Amino acid sequence: MNAKRDTRESLIEAGRKLFLTHGYHSTGVEALRGEVGAPKGVFYYHFPSKEALGLEVLGRYARESDERTRALLQDPARPPIERLRRYFEDMGEMFCGAGFAGGCMLGNFAQELADSSECFREALDGSFDRWQAVIADTLREARDRGEVPASMDPEATAGFLLNAWQGTILRAKVTKSRLPVDHFLDVTFRILLAA
Amino acid sequence: MNAKRDTRESLIEAGRKLFLTHGYHSTGVEALRGEVGAPKGVFYYHFPSKEALGLEVLGRYARESDERTRALLQDPARPPIERLRRYFEDMGEMFCGAGFAGGCMLGNFAQELADSSECFREALDGSFDRWQAVIADTLREARDRGEVPASMDPEATAGFLLNAWQGTILRAKVTKSRLPVDHFLDVTFRILLAA
Repeated sequence: MNAKRDTRESLIEAGRKLFLTHGYHSTGVEALRGEVGAPKGVFYYHFPSKEALGLEVLGRYARESDERTRALLQDPARPPIERLRRYFEDMGEMFCGAGFAGGCMLGNFAQELADSSECFREALDGSFDRWQAVIADTLREARDRGEVPASMDPEATAGFLLNAWQGTILRAKVTKSRLPVDHFLDVTFRILLAA
Repeated sequence: MNAKRDTRESLIEAGRKLFLTHGYHSTGVEALRGEVGAPKGVFYYHFPSKEALGLEVLGRYARESDERTRALLQDPARPPIERLRRYFEDMGEMFCGAGFAGGCMLGNFAQELADSSECFREALDGSFDRWQAVIADTLREARDRGEVPASMDPEATAGFLLNAWQGTILRAKVTKSRLPVDHFLDVTFRILLAA
């Protein structure tokens, strides 16, 4: 029973690693099986399809991101805009520390799968919406405390920032430098969210 | 001679269409050959590899985008910020009119290839830099005319906006709605670039 669960968990871990490094389409079931050193045929004992594993990997990644986002953005010990700045700084450091490679699985899967797979598109849509909602709550709190102008629309600004962040990570994958992250932090916190 | 050139051109057209619809990795040489109805073996008469065709397709796409960008952003008949707004509005309408599918080939190739192919990464890096430079020139002109605050850094803001736009298109592929485009236009022109 434990060995079965271990193999299943190992396949999910392998999916997370290989999907993030090589993309979804470029990672075959054979590569996933080989990564965990399981015998042929074992994959389909645990998952009916690569898609089923992909959805499980994506779901876990999104839940972990959501927990990390809430832990940082709902910390009552700091003012809201400072929380938001630290949050994006932290994500930027993580990505820069990883050599500007891989990026965000939500953004990667969106690019590869949103047009071709309705079940991935729906899962991604829900995950982005939940992510945006936590940012919007933080901006609403900032507005109510007078940290940003009262005319700022928290929902539109949260959507804009989340999407801008995805584009920032994408560009940094291309430049292989932290410049896009610095531009994001500079423009967002010195101009866009300046009181 | 003309038939040869026609086949080569048809393969490039097929690449543009299939790479944008299905992605680079999911489009095989056989699918490209089938799309133009050419006999087996013909592909490699015209291109040494799928990569060679991909670089040609990307180069043409980038040149056409660059020409369209310059035509709209360097139009002396309108003030700079109005040009910039119309430019993003036009791109948004094109993308929405295409059913929120496909997106920008530069963004798609960046996501799929920047980590795995150095020649694609370099081509994309150059294309994004040229694109950013035209936007930066427009912002510099806007600043010199007093349309935006003198404290605005044209290069950082241009980088931020271009990356934000890529993320906006990505998110609209997921939501299959124009809401991300509307958020981009609203936040960019009502807050970020407001005088």
